[in-house]
Parts: sequence; C-alpha cells; structure tokens
Amino acid sequence: MDTEKYIVQGFKASAVVSGLKKGNALDVALIVSEREAAVAGVFTTNKVRAAPVLLSERHVKNGKARAIIANAGNANACTGSPGLNDARTTADLVGKALGMSAEEVLVASTGVIGQRLNMGVVARAIPLLTEALSPDALPLVAKAIMTTDSFPKISSFEGQAGGRPYRIMGIAKGAGMIMPHMATMLCFILSDISIDPDTLKRALLSSVRSTFNRITVDGDTSTNDMVLVMANGLAGNGVLSAGEYDIFAGGLRDVMGDLARMIVRDGEGATKLVSVDIKNAFSSSDALKAARTVANSSLVKTAFYGQDPNWGRIVAALGRAEIEMIEERVDIWIDEVQIVAGGLGRGAEAEKRAAEIMTRKEFTLTIDLHQGAYHDRMVTCDLTHEYVTINADYRT
Amino acid sequence: MDTEKYIVQGFKASAVVSGLKKGNALDVALIVSEREAAVAGVFTTNKVRAAPVLLSERHVKNGKARAIIANAGNANACTGSPGLNDARTTADLVGKALGMSAEEVLVASTGVIGQRLNMGVVARAIPLLTEALSPDALPLVAKAIMTTDSFPKISSFEGQAGGRPYRIMGIAKGAGMIMPHMATMLCFILSDISIDPDTLKRALLSSVRSTFNRITVDGDTSTNDMVLVMANGLAGNGVLSAGEYDIFAGGLRDVMGDLARMIVRDGEGATKLVSVDIKNAFSSSDALKAARTVANSSLVKTAFYGQDPNWGRIVAALGRAEIEMIEERVDIWIDEVQIVAGGLGRGAEAEKRAAEIMTRKEFTLTIDLHQGAYHDRMVTCDLTHEYVTINADYRT
Repeated sequence: MDTEKYIVQGFKASAVVSGLKKGNALDVALIVSEREAAVAGVFTTNKVRAAPVLLSERHVKNGKARAIIANAGNANACTGSPGLNDARTTADLVGKALGMSAEEVLVASTGVIGQRLNMGVVARAIPLLTEALSPDALPLVAKAIMTTDSFPKISSFEGQAGGRPYRIMGIAKGAGMIMPHMATMLCFILSDISIDPDTLKRALLSSVRSTFNRITVDGDTSTNDMVLVMANGLAGNGVLSAGEYDIFAGGLRDVMGDLARMIVRDGEGATKLVSVDIKNAFSSSDALKAARTVANSSLVKTAFYGQDPNWGRIVAALGRAEIEMIEERVDIWIDEVQIVAGGLGRGAEAEKRAAEIMTRKEFTLTIDLHQGAYHDRMVTCDLTHEYVTINADYRT
Repeated sequence: MDTEKYIVQGFKASAVVSGLKKGNALDVALIVSEREAAVAGVFTTNKVRAAPVLLSERHVKNGKARAIIANAGNANACTGSPGLNDARTTADLVGKALGMSAEEVLVASTGVIGQRLNMGVVARAIPLLTEALSPDALPLVAKAIMTTDSFPKISSFEGQAGGRPYRIMGIAKGAGMIMPHMATMLCFILSDISIDPDTLKRALLSSVRSTFNRITVDGDTSTNDMVLVMANGLAGNGVLSAGEYDIFAGGLRDVMGDLARMIVRDGEGATKLVSVDIKNAFSSSDALKAARTVANSSLVKTAFYGQDPNWGRIVAALGRAEIEMIEERVDIWIDEVQIVAGGLGRGAEAEKRAAEIMTRKEFTLTIDLHQGAYHDRMVTCDLTHEYVTINADYRT
C-alpha cells in the first residue's frame, strides 16, 4: 500500500491490539489533529442509539474537535447509562492523555450489541495509542475498525483551493446491518482544507444523501453508525469560492461514494455488486421506494446470486413498493440487455444474454417505470449462503 | 391419510399430471360443487396482479360460484392481455365440460412468473379432470398446487348450526413470497354450511386479518395470491344465529390459522417457526409495524437459525420500525425466559437458557414495549442456507 498517499497533513493516527476483538487483531484506533479542526457528523436514524453515538453527536455540535477514538469488537449499544458513562470516560481518558478537553474527543464503537465495554482494556490501550501516533498510520485505523469486513476501506481525493493543494482521506467499515439511513458503518473523513463547520456540514449532508444513504446489504440499520468529517485547515486556503466549494463537495462525494461501494462489495457474504437504477418514477419518493424495495427483496437478491434474470420477482417487488405503476409500461434491463418491454418478457434469447452479464461481479439493473421524471439509485449486493453462515454464527 | 375426514358433502375434486410442472407430478386440479355455492375471495394486494387473480376477482363479485380450476408450474402472471385471455379460455373450457357458465368457474395459478401458460396442455387436462372427479380427492388437490412446498397443507373443522352438522375443509400452498398481505399462496376452503355470500365474506375478511395477513417467510408478496371460500348449503341449516356465526367464523379462523402456520413451517428452507408477539405498543399500527419489522429482519431471522438469543438485533430492528419506543422500557422474552429487562441484557445465564429454547422447532419471541395497550403478532421462520439454495436455483 502506498502509505504516502494516505497522509493528510496535521493528522496522526495509531491502532493497537487490546483484546476487545477475538484473535489478536487491531481493535482500538486513535486519530488526532495537531490543531483544532472543523467537524461535522451524521449519525444513525435508528431510535436505539449506542452510547458513542449519543456522546459524539453532542461533541460535534459546536463544530470543533481534535480526536477520534474508535473500537471494534463491542458496540457499547443497549448498555444504558452505565454504557454512556463508559463512552464519557473513554473521551475523558483520551483528552487527558492528549492534553485536550473531553469535548474535543469523538468516540465511535462497532461490534456486538448489549455488552458492557471492558473499560480496563480501554484504559490500558489509550497510552499505547498515544505513544504510537504517526502520520502514516491511517490505513491501520481502517483495519482496526473492521468487524466482519474482509478488507479495509480507504479512499482519497486531491483538490486545490485558493491555489493551495488539499487532500480528502476517508476510511470506513461496513459489512452487515447496512441500509439507509446509516448502518453498522463507521466512516471517518479527514482533510487539511480550511473550511468553516457550517459549510463542512452542508457538504457532508449532501454527500451522504447520494452515497451512504443509497446502499443496502440486508435492509437492517444499526445503532452505531456515524460519519465524521474533520478538516484542520493546514492547506492554508482562504474562504472557499462557490466553484471551490463545488469541487470540495464533489471530492467528498467521490470519496464517500467510493467507500459506500466498497462497503456493499464487502457486504456480508456478497459476491456481486448491483446498482438498481430507477428511471421516470412518478415522484422522487416513488423513485426511492422502488429502488429500495427491489434492492432489499430477498427473492431478487437470491436471483442475483443464482445469476438468474428472474424479472418476475423484480416486477412483483415493484408491485408491492406502494408506488404509482402500470405494469404494461415497465421496461427492465440488465446492463444493456433489455429483458422486459411494456411489462412483458422479451424471451429466452434476451434472458440468456442477461444471465451471462449476471455472471459478472458488477452490473446494473435498470427499471424504467414511464410514470414521470424522477430517478434514483440504490447499490445492493446478492444474498448468499455465506451471508447466512456469517450471521447465524456471529456471536458463537 | 384418513380420507373420509376430508370429504365435504356436495363437493368433488380431481387432480392430474399435465406436464406444466417438472417431474411427472400432479399439477392441475379441479374442485366442483354439485350445486351453486356462496363464494367469497381475498386477492393479492400487489399492484402487479396475475391474470387468474383479475379473472377470479371478477367471478366472485356476485357471490356465487361452482368450480375452481388451479394449476402449479406456471403463475400466468406478467403475461399481459394474452395471459388474461388464457385464464378466460380456461374458465370457458371448464364451464363447457361441466355444463355451467364460465362466470361460475374460478381460476388460480402458481409457479413461474412471466411465461405464457401452455394452453394445449391445459385443454388436454380438462377432460381428464372432469372424468376423475371424486368426493375423496381433495387431498390430491393439496398436492397438485404445491410448488416449493415440501408437504400438502390440509385442515378441517366440524360444527353445528340449526342442529345440523357441517364441515369446513381448507387446503393451501405456500412456501416462498409469503408476507402480508397475501403471498404466493393459494388457499381454497370448502364448506357445506348454508350461509349467504355477504356473511361468508365478512367471516373470511376477519379471519384473513389474523391468519394469512400475519405470517411472513421472506417479506415478499406475490402477484398470484388468493383465498377462496365456497359454501354450498348442503348441511341444510337455517339462517345462522349470532352465536352460530361466531362458531363458524371461529372455525374458519382456526382452519386458516392452521394452514397459515403450516405455510410458515414449510417456508422455503425454514427449520423453525417463531411467533413474534408485540405487547403494549403505543397504537395498533405500531404493534403491527414492530411485529413486521422484527419478523422480517434478515439479521433476526439468521439469529433464529443460529439459535442465538442475539437481542441486540431485535432491539435494533425495533429502533428502525418507525414506532414510538423508549429503549429503557423494552422487555424481551424467548418463551418464558426473559433476556432483556428495561432495555438491558439480563446476562449470560438467561441467554444460555434462551439459546436452549431456541433449539426447539417452535418458540415465541415476546416483546413488551410498555408504551400503550396494543398487541399484535406475526408468525415467521428462520432464514437458512436452504432458503438461499432454493431461491438461487428455482428456475434452473
């Protein structure tokens, strides 16, 4: 891995083996900005919210932060007020170790729900983390936050503002419980751009909408998701012009889109990445509902796995999506091969060609409803034996 | 099988091997009432509705019918107006063969979506069916309508009205695409009770609500579902008293509840039947939403399969159900073992006992939200490797 590429000036990171995760793997990580950074966050919409979600949401409110501590192996969710105290203590310990206030420290956790965090383990890990801080260790953070992920997820972008180059670096973890809005997903994005917190938040929200909120692995949403963006201003650019903002927001969207697709590609047991594109829905909410219903249908997802262009299941999913639709208008394609025209199958030859495309690791399912002018897209994966194996055995 | 038990006076049935289904199996069936019967039906809520659904819905409108022809192997869904013509032709042919009008014939199909029915095969089958009609062949109909079902589903009830005994006999098929409202599910119920069509419809609707509309296998709903009830009056009872109506409606509900549970027990790949009982929700719609969301969660269903009392997934599913809930109030039981009290886990010992219960083929997951006074229940199954195998390979 080209580690230089993953350095963002003014940020250091570290990861250690604490024992929270089984099997002697990196499981606690720290990210620190050498100076106060603008920060923005997006948090799970699940009504059951893990302790670190509650705490970090409070800590990003003033738009400023300096550090993120993240652990895998234990989600610190459904742990009540003792769990919230544990998250607070973690922030306190990190703040003391780094000489900053606890309010400048964000906390993120992922892993098993409903068990108290072992605070002895966390307390022992913190001095090791602060000692190991280094500018080129961000890829290790990507490893430390993995749970059932099979590969670390990193993406970066380089831009210019006011003649000064800047970088956006994102890391994420995903795998299960992936579904809008937010999932068992952690995403940390670091940049050296100079930007005010309100503008940073605006860029984050618009990017989340078209990236993390448009992916699904299994339709479940988690208690622990968060996306945090920190920008420390070391690039030294001035106030962003409208054009420069657009480039930054575009870069952020690219990084987050990249990470979101990696999360689906690495969905639990997934062997295929499928983009479900809805065209010409009656309304924007219809477009999203149609995309979501198809992308989450177990029957459609097993058909992807079976490489079977079983469009009857797709049409049946649309039929229960509670959208405006007229069966006789529906057209369906697998990549460039049209398998349904006006609600009717186009025959064995078209299906044979579509089945060949479905042997690929990535393809697009396009559905034209011919009801209006609204489009949307969900990125999903197939439902496989391996998904069942992973989730039947997760805790045992 | 005790065939006498499955005779309802005045009804005859038959089933033959036509070739619509692979492997030389019974696949077309006929049920005939010797005299005009009161009829009521409930049909899929999917916006994509198969040809036989469109036709039979029209034919039950006047509350009278005499025959049902059903086939497996081909759903005659997404086949456009040619498909509707095929269904109409089928009813015509049966009507001619039996000397009744086509409007007295109901048509039902289940199987692959999107392929035209082979009408030559159907036409050849009809004379064989009429020739084979016999009072004790209803169990054969249950076999003929099976698709991925592993056993035929039959249930019966005996009651008395006006001093006259009557019988209710129900047969059904299910397996995949099971989810309220209605599924790839066919259910035919026959009775010799004397009842007017409006009263019959009332009894049917109230029974569907608490039986077929409270089961789920995979959250998908089908294009072809229907429940038909025919009552030919041969029992000779008079107008039902309020008490007699209640007994009849209760019997109907028992038969349909029985069949609904059989459908879940035989859900594609299912190894466990789980009743998800919601207690004390804020509203009736919240109770149903909570039950549905938990009963359809892939993560919860794989945990059932893994015999893992992973209550974090249950709480996380509740959290995204869009209901009124306060995490700190939630109590959860597996049968009589409480695993969550006030939103917190009750520890390893309770989970161990719950895990033992989950090795059983049937158990109840009870969730008390402590938000109000509304209860509801969904019956679901686990999500297994076999489900994926069946649905990845269905057409190949």
